[in-house]
Amino acid sequence: MKNRQIHLVKRPQGVVTTDCFALVEAEVPPLQDGQVLVQNLWLSLDPYMRGRMDDVKSYSAVQPLNAVMVGGTAGVVLDSKNPKYAIGDTVAGAFGWQEFGITDGTGQYGAPLRKVSDKIPLSAYLGVVGMPGVTAWHGLNKIIEPKAGETVVVTAASGAVGSVVGQLAKAKGAHVIGIAGGATKCAYVQGELGFDACIDYKAGDVGKALAEVAPKGVDGVFENVGGAIFDAILARMNAFGRIAVCGLISGYNGQAVPLQNVRSILTNRLKVQGFIVSDHLSEWPEALTELGGLVASGKLKYRESIAQGLESAPQAFIGLLKGDNFGKQLVKLV
Amino acid sequence: MKNRQIHLVKRPQGVVTTDCFALVEAEVPPLQDGQVLVQNLWLSLDPYMRGRMDDVKSYSAVQPLNAVMVGGTAGVVLDSKNPKYAIGDTVAGAFGWQEFGITDGTGQYGAPLRKVSDKIPLSAYLGVVGMPGVTAWHGLNKIIEPKAGETVVVTAASGAVGSVVGQLAKAKGAHVIGIAGGATKCAYVQGELGFDACIDYKAGDVGKALAEVAPKGVDGVFENVGGAIFDAILARMNAFGRIAVCGLISGYNGQAVPLQNVRSILTNRLKVQGFIVSDHLSEWPEALTELGGLVASGKLKYRESIAQGLESAPQAFIGLLKGDNFGKQLVKLV
Repeated sequence: MKNRQIHLVKRPQGVVTTDCFALVEAEVPPLQDGQVLVQNLWLSLDPYMRGRMDDVKSYSAVQPLNAVMVGGTAGVVLDSKNPKYAIGDTVAGAFGWQEFGITDGTGQYGAPLRKVSDKIPLSAYLGVVGMPGVTAWHGLNKIIEPKAGETVVVTAASGAVGSVVGQLAKAKGAHVIGIAGGATKCAYVQGELGFDACIDYKAGDVGKALAEVAPKGVDGVFENVGGAIFDAILARMNAFGRIAVCGLISGYNGQAVPLQNVRSILTNRLKVQGFIVSDHLSEWPEALTELGGLVASGKLKYRESIAQGLESAPQAFIGLLKGDNFGKQLVKLV
Repeated sequence: MKNRQIHLVKRPQGVVTTDCFALVEAEVPPLQDGQVLVQNLWLSLDPYMRGRMDDVKSYSAVQPLNAVMVGGTAGVVLDSKNPKYAIGDTVAGAFGWQEFGITDGTGQYGAPLRKVSDKIPLSAYLGVVGMPGVTAWHGLNKIIEPKAGETVVVTAASGAVGSVVGQLAKAKGAHVIGIAGGATKCAYVQGELGFDACIDYKAGDVGKALAEVAPKGVDGVFENVGGAIFDAILARMNAFGRIAVCGLISGYNGQAVPLQNVRSILTNRLKVQGFIVSDHLSEWPEALTELGGLVASGKLKYRESIAQGLESAPQAFIGLLKGDNFGKQLVKLV
C-alpha cells in the first residue's frame, strides 16, 4: 500500500516557499506485533511548524531534512496488532504530513495516540479540543487569570487558539477585545464568537481603535502576533497586567519583531510570560474534558479552513503564515 | 530657621540639565501638636526620580513643578511634639531634597517615618537597608527565585540595588555574573562583592563576554538597564528563565529602548516581570530585618558615592543617570 508523505527538503530563507517541500511516495511497511496502522483523515497546520523548519535553537526539536514534516493528525485505525486499539477506532495523534501512520501507541513527537469519541467531529480534536484549545486554556487560566470586569485582548482572534481564548474569557465575565485581519474575520469574532469588540488591524491605527474599545485600559493579553500590534497593546496596559506570549507570527518568516514600548513592562509592573503547551501535559486531561464538554453543548464555537488533499498542505501552510486562513487550518486527506 | 530646598522648576526635555532645578530658601514653620522636626543628614538619589520628572503616566505620582523634589532621607529628630519620637532619635523617611522636614510621623510619599538603630551607619538606611536593598531582595526572592547552581545576571551590578542582588544570589548558591561600566567597577564587583564574574559593557561585546562567563546560559536576570545589554542577555537565556525588570535606565533620558530578541521570551518560555518595590510594603519588615542583620555581621558589603551639600544634588543626580556614581549615590547634607 502506498503512503504519500510531504518531506521538508530545503530550509526556508525567510519566507516559506513551496520548493521547501516535496511529495514523496513510500510503501506502508507490514505491521509488527504491538503496532497500529492509522489512516490519517485530517492533518493540522499550525504556526509552530515554522519554527521547526529553521535549524536554530528553538523550543522544540528541529524538523529534520528529507523526513516527514511534523504535525498533528486525526484518523481511523485500519489495522491493529495492539490490544488497546481496534479496527475502526477514531484516534488523534501526531503522524505528520502523511496519509498513513504506524505506531506502537506511544505516538510520535511526544504526543501519545489517543482514542477519541465520535460525539463531536473528528477534526475538532486537532483544534478546539486539541493542542490549540489546550493552548488557549492554559494561557488564559494559568497566566492571564482574568477577573470579571477586566479587559482582555486577544490577537489573531479568529484563529484556532484566539477564538477559544476569547470565548473562555467571556465566560469568565471579562470584557474581551479581539484583533484580527479584515472585516470578515472581525464580523465573525464579534458577531458569532461573541467578543465585545474586534479591531481590524488592516483597517487603521490599532492603538487608536484600542483606546476606543478598551477605554479602561487592558488587563490581560493573549499574544499570538508580536511586533507593532503588541506595541500598540503595551501602550494601553493597566497596572499589574498579564501577557501570555503564545506566538509571534509576525516574525516567523525571519523579520525582526522589535518591541518599542518595553518601558510599559516596568511602569505597569506587567508579567510577560512565554509558554508552550507541551510543557504542561499534566493539564491536558482537565482542559480537554472542559473544552470537549463546551463543544458538545454548543457553548464553544469554532470554524475551520479546509484544504483538500495532502498535496495542498504546503500552499495552505504558507497561507496560514500570512493569515489567509479563517479559523483552524486543516488539510482533509481523504 | 532657614530650610534650604531644591525644587523642580522645569521638566527636562530628554537629558536632565541643572536648570531644571532651583535652590530655594524657606522658613521652617513652628511645630504643631503631633509633629516632629527632622534635620536631614543624608539624601538618597535614585534613578526612579527621573521618571517622576516627566509629566506622563508612570508608576507613581508626577513630581509637581515648583515643589521640593521627592526623595528618601535619613536624619535626626531636632524637636518633637509627638510622643512616638524623641529629640535625638535617628530616623529614615522621605522628606525629599531639603535640609529639614516636618511630619506627623506618617511621613511623606507613602513612606512612614521609621526610627532606626545606630548600630549600622545612618546612610545605610537609604541604601542596602532601605528602599534599594528591599528592591534587590524582592526581585531576587520573589521573581528570580534562583536555585543553587543556576546562573543569575545582574545589570548595574555595582549600584545600590545590583550589588545587593548579586551578594544575596551568591549566598543562595547561584553562579552570579555582574554587568557594570568600567574596569574599576568590575574589579569591585568581582573582587570585593564576590560575584563570579563581571562584564565591563564599555569594553566590548556583552553577548560574546556573556557566552564565555555563562557557558551554561542564563536562568535569572535582574535588569536595571534595558536596551542593547538586555538584548544581549535575552540571547543567552535558558528555558524557563526569570527576568525581574527593576529599571530601564538606558532610556530614562527619553531615548527609545527597543528590544530585538523578543522571540526569546517565547522560545525559552521566559517570565518577564516588572516590579516596583513600593507595591510590596508588607515584605519590607522581613527584608529589612534580613538585610540589617547581614550588614551588621559584615556579610553584605556596600559602597557609597557621596556628594557634599544640598546644592550638589542636581549635578550628582545627572551623574547617576550616566553611571558616574560608584555604589549608592548619596548627598551628605551637613
